[in-house]
Amino acid sequence: MKKRTHTCGELRISDAGKIVILNGWVDRIRDLGGIKFVLLRDRYGFTQVVFDPQNEALYSMALKLGNEFCVSVTGTVRERPGDARNSGMSTGDIEIAADELEILSESAIPPIYINIDEESSEEMHLRYRYLDLRRPAMQNNIVTRHRFVQATRSYLNRNGFIDVETPVLGKSTPEGARDFLVPSRLKPGKFYALPQSPQIFKQLLMVAGFDKYYQIAKCFRDEDFRADRQPEFTQIDIEMSFATEEDVFSITEGLMKHAFKEAVGVDLETPFKRFTYREVMDLYGSDKPDTRYEMEIRDLSAQFDGTSFSPISDALGQGMKVKGFMIRGLAGKFSRKRLDDFTQQSKELGLGGLMWIKVESDSIKSSIIKHCQREVEKVVEFFGAEVGDLVLLSVGESLSLSRALGQLRIRITKEENLRAEGFDFLWVTEFPMFSFNKEEGRIEAEHHPFTMPDLDDLEKFGDTQPLKVRSKAYDLVLNGYEIASGSVRIHRQDIQSRVFDLIGLSREEAMEKFGYLLEAFQYGPPPHAGIAPGLDRIVAIIVGAPSIRDVIAFPKVASGADLMTSAPSEVSQKQLDLLKLQLKDSGDRE
Amino acid sequence: MKKRTHTCGELRISDAGKIVILNGWVDRIRDLGGIKFVLLRDRYGFTQVVFDPQNEALYSMALKLGNEFCVSVTGTVRERPGDARNSGMSTGDIEIAADELEILSESAIPPIYINIDEESSEEMHLRYRYLDLRRPAMQNNIVTRHRFVQATRSYLNRNGFIDVETPVLGKSTPEGARDFLVPSRLKPGKFYALPQSPQIFKQLLMVAGFDKYYQIAKCFRDEDFRADRQPEFTQIDIEMSFATEEDVFSITEGLMKHAFKEAVGVDLETPFKRFTYREVMDLYGSDKPDTRYEMEIRDLSAQFDGTSFSPISDALGQGMKVKGFMIRGLAGKFSRKRLDDFTQQSKELGLGGLMWIKVESDSIKSSIIKHCQREVEKVVEFFGAEVGDLVLLSVGESLSLSRALGQLRIRITKEENLRAEGFDFLWVTEFPMFSFNKEEGRIEAEHHPFTMPDLDDLEKFGDTQPLKVRSKAYDLVLNGYEIASGSVRIHRQDIQSRVFDLIGLSREEAMEKFGYLLEAFQYGPPPHAGIAPGLDRIVAIIVGAPSIRDVIAFPKVASGADLMTSAPSEVSQKQLDLLKLQLKDSGDRE
Repeated sequence: MKKRTHTCGELRISDAGKIVILNGWVDRIRDLGGIKFVLLRDRYGFTQVVFDPQNEALYSMALKLGNEFCVSVTGTVRERPGDARNSGMSTGDIEIAADELEILSESAIPPIYINIDEESSEEMHLRYRYLDLRRPAMQNNIVTRHRFVQATRSYLNRNGFIDVETPVLGKSTPEGARDFLVPSRLKPGKFYALPQSPQIFKQLLMVAGFDKYYQIAKCFRDEDFRADRQPEFTQIDIEMSFATEEDVFSITEGLMKHAFKEAVGVDLETPFKRFTYREVMDLYGSDKPDTRYEMEIRDLSAQFDGTSFSPISDALGQGMKVKGFMIRGLAGKFSRKRLDDFTQQSKELGLGGLMWIKVESDSIKSSIIKHCQREVEKVVEFFGAEVGDLVLLSVGESLSLSRALGQLRIRITKEENLRAEGFDFLWVTEFPMFSFNKEEGRIEAEHHPFTMPDLDDLEKFGDTQPLKVRSKAYDLVLNGYEIASGSVRIHRQDIQSRVFDLIGLSREEAMEKFGYLLEAFQYGPPPHAGIAPGLDRIVAIIVGAPSIRDVIAFPKVASGADLMTSAPSEVSQKQLDLLKLQLKDSGDRE
Repeated sequence: MKKRTHTCGELRISDAGKIVILNGWVDRIRDLGGIKFVLLRDRYGFTQVVFDPQNEALYSMALKLGNEFCVSVTGTVRERPGDARNSGMSTGDIEIAADELEILSESAIPPIYINIDEESSEEMHLRYRYLDLRRPAMQNNIVTRHRFVQATRSYLNRNGFIDVETPVLGKSTPEGARDFLVPSRLKPGKFYALPQSPQIFKQLLMVAGFDKYYQIAKCFRDEDFRADRQPEFTQIDIEMSFATEEDVFSITEGLMKHAFKEAVGVDLETPFKRFTYREVMDLYGSDKPDTRYEMEIRDLSAQFDGTSFSPISDALGQGMKVKGFMIRGLAGKFSRKRLDDFTQQSKELGLGGLMWIKVESDSIKSSIIKHCQREVEKVVEFFGAEVGDLVLLSVGESLSLSRALGQLRIRITKEENLRAEGFDFLWVTEFPMFSFNKEEGRIEAEHHPFTMPDLDDLEKFGDTQPLKVRSKAYDLVLNGYEIASGSVRIHRQDIQSRVFDLIGLSREEAMEKFGYLLEAFQYGPPPHAGIAPGLDRIVAIIVGAPSIRDVIAFPKVASGADLMTSAPSEVSQKQLDLLKLQLKDSGDRE
């Protein structure tokens, strides 16, 4: 093999006359008047190579070429004739007149197309992932991910963070999602667990005095893989000592600004917008809104104040609210049938029903115009609604009402296939500290039990109304996805005890579950806070990929299978015997 | 909590007069004439804080301080009196006159010492790892590792390598060491395996056209953990397309040079020395010699040519060799008893016995001087041995003889506790392609079956004497440790088939074992080569740690247990039921 002198993306008109060696793959072959034009491809680009029939030996070798052959070509760079130039290609002004050709390896006909975007089934793409990854679009995804990761590291290194590896063979904890387990051979009957996140280890690293930690960490959750999840995923794990929420916000914003710039040349505006949990729930009925689509939910109770329409006046009397949102310009797309369908959904979401107002050129139409024309007009005025605008509104308990309207709002963006541009970052703060687990009839920690509560709230509400206690937990949202989650952690034992009490965890149970962390907290733990941006999702949003599978080199499908390697697979009886395990018959189910 | 203005390693005499805030841990407390001197510690260093009894409120709070309390101190930087300066401390010229103190968290009395090196048991250090990691020596280990890793990445990034994550949940392969298995819940009875290395994935990334790949990759081997091994360890995984051995050597040397400079300021000389496998075996009887200790093994057969001493002449007549090595200046330390002991070991290593020659001030002493004085003198002359030097020599089949002498050589460096300085890098090339597995009575691939053989050798010896075939596999050795291993890979199907034939693997078996890789190789695989330096060992050598445990934040002990988290642990019946697994009774052993 001759060593390449250049890559396939490198030669320009200024190189004309040079003798060069290129290594790469045959992307396509054309025949024009007996001359063979071979487009050579590598990670860096494409270069056209020309085989002239006058060089008979060389030409007859070129005749053997097929798509995806791996070759080494020696030749002379020459300017293309004016009409043959291709401005869409970085090397489009030149071509290589081939002098020598070495076939490094041949290729069978690939089962998927590499040089056109026509889609085979996703299954074929995953089965032949090594070919799928040859597609320039996929290469770009993986290289962008690489760039984002390297920019992340360089930013955090520069800011004094230390990259520390934490164990993959960890301990199973009963909280949270299901663990993947790893049976131990040396201690039969015992198991390691793959980490759902390095949460406890990063807090221990703070106790150990590392001050600022990060890790691009693989995390594992044995969930049912709906909703574009992967059993293994990657997070940018960050923790800081002597730090407040503000420090975490500032580092995260700086990180995103730097990494977006380095990875894709985008200038983000910082600081990011901030909303409290209460605010986003009120405005968007979601804790991860995409605010680019506007359609903010507004409280319209004042507009219905004193209404004689009894379904509404009764509800208001019971402390309920009227809320709604305006959809600009799309009134014409909402037929009676579609509105009925939305009403149906609103009922499934627990609302009594859905009201609507359409502004048409000559009149205002509304499902409730007969009962409350004045109120409808007030709503139109409130929104500044114009011809073609639609308002959807309903009545209910404030939070549930917002939530349901939020669902309708999202449905509209999807059905209308609305495509907003840009990157919409926002912080959501002051998440509730506790939530009520209806199944188990008990109060539990919303984020995790080491999240610092708002101490004022703990005083005010803790013992009587724990669900009102706000926490120092926060999310970062990008284009409607929660891309990072974090919190200030509890470092004081008295507060930790209060929290365990409130979620009904005895000291003994707490020790059983989190023993070594609680033990560590006896020895001067520093105040600390952290966050963990999800790498896969961020990169998927950056490259505009519909699924995180598109930014993972070797992903798994919903069943957890790797279609290329056919993992998971059966193992030998000998392997099981060594682990002192046996499989239960499938008939043996309980 | 007040935000720190400086770290504890930062203040200098030029800061005198500044009002500063420091956050950190109480490393120790002294009382001198009623004044409290508190040494405050963080990751960045130490600063002395002074509490004067004249500020009564503050002083009485300072009286409550204990070791490892986490505090925030506000105070004024002042120059220390000349006799109180400490030149051994970067902040030793100043101290802080405290004005305010906040106890961020208290500490119980730590179970291990943090501020003195007196050793508790290693068990205690691992059990309380978060305290052990507070020790400046451990912090230095982990920070050095961080620096080495970041330098590694920046070098590889700069050289066009792409960092790609490969799966942790992989497929079990029957070759090599034992896999850790992960039962699948969604496909009961099937298992993932944790990767022993990303070998196959990195080769697939070459097939996919990524050209240059790296990853700081966690690898897993379920071995019996003797000899300072960890069940999970980290390698710097590298693979290059269109590359030869020379390219891999050059990138690896550049990487080491850069990373040693960045991590610890050491200038390495490159290129590194090179030896063939044959050469190191001849000279040192080891494929990973530490050449700093000299004591090269030399073939002394010529010196015994025509000897009348029949044990030697007979052996030479049968094609055996005489070999030996000189130990400079240590003859006086080898009593008759110790020499007998070495002889005993040489017999256990398969030699007939051991001969010795000591050069003393008035005479030459030797175990064989009675039988062959002239030959002994020739050996002394050959080595240029001087008074005080010792030569050990023996007779045997060339390779086994070198191996056995190599063992004795290493024993001497250990028993004499020889400490060579510096970093002794060397390449070992031309490893044998195949070895003979005595247990299974068959030929197997020495490195792995995708290693490229020397094609000339394959022609010459392949079918008749496969054990003579050299491979394109190489190791990098540092101070007597194999710190990296790699090879040029086979990218041609005809060669791959030859190799499978030679190790007695049928096409069907090969497909069963390596199906997707072989399948991928049908589609124009590029020539490629790679290497995988072991991060843990390299960093341990750099910081002079006796064990790789000292450079891993949360390591495991020989039984595979994590003494801090007590992983692996028992899991609930519910978890096992979900996986359709049951434990075999320990009585149920086969």
